[in-house]
Amino acid sequence: MKSQAIFYHAGCPVCVAAEHQLLDLVDANRVQVEVVHLGDAQQRVAEAKKLGVKSVPALVVDGQVLHINFGAAIEALE
Amino acid sequence: MKSQAIFYHAGCPVCVAAEHQLLDLVDANRVQVEVVHLGDAQQRVAEAKKLGVKSVPALVVDGQVLHINFGAAIEALE
Repeated sequence: MKSQAIFYHAGCPVCVAAEHQLLDLVDANRVQVEVVHLGDAQQRVAEAKKLGVKSVPALVVDGQVLHINFGAAIEALE
Repeated sequence: MKSQAIFYHAGCPVCVAAEHQLLDLVDANRVQVEVVHLGDAQQRVAEAKKLGVKSVPALVVDGQVLHINFGAAIEALE
């Protein structure tokens, strides 16, 4: 069964660069990545916070959070 | 040709968890990841700094740095 991953970002240059880099690395046969732009999907900020996301960009894989590159605090997206 | 990636860490729990998570995601057919424990290989701290690493854990892929989870400042390893 494929691992489920969600890449949360806010569309900033740091986010977009990290997104491309990370998604290039991922083995698409084993991991399914959903990309969520929290600026466009503000209703999902609470979901991201519940998963432990403190800043974006962040990759959540099987419930574990990887914060990338000291991004914007998630509170800034509320 | 495979992308070259280096995962720099210092052996701390945050690093080790992030290492396992990231390496699980990576498509080993397209990306070759070298894992470097900077606590053991202190002579490589300068190399990591030159690549732009500011904290560990960090993944450097084709010269681009992804800092993970607000880790320890690299100066702490010098």
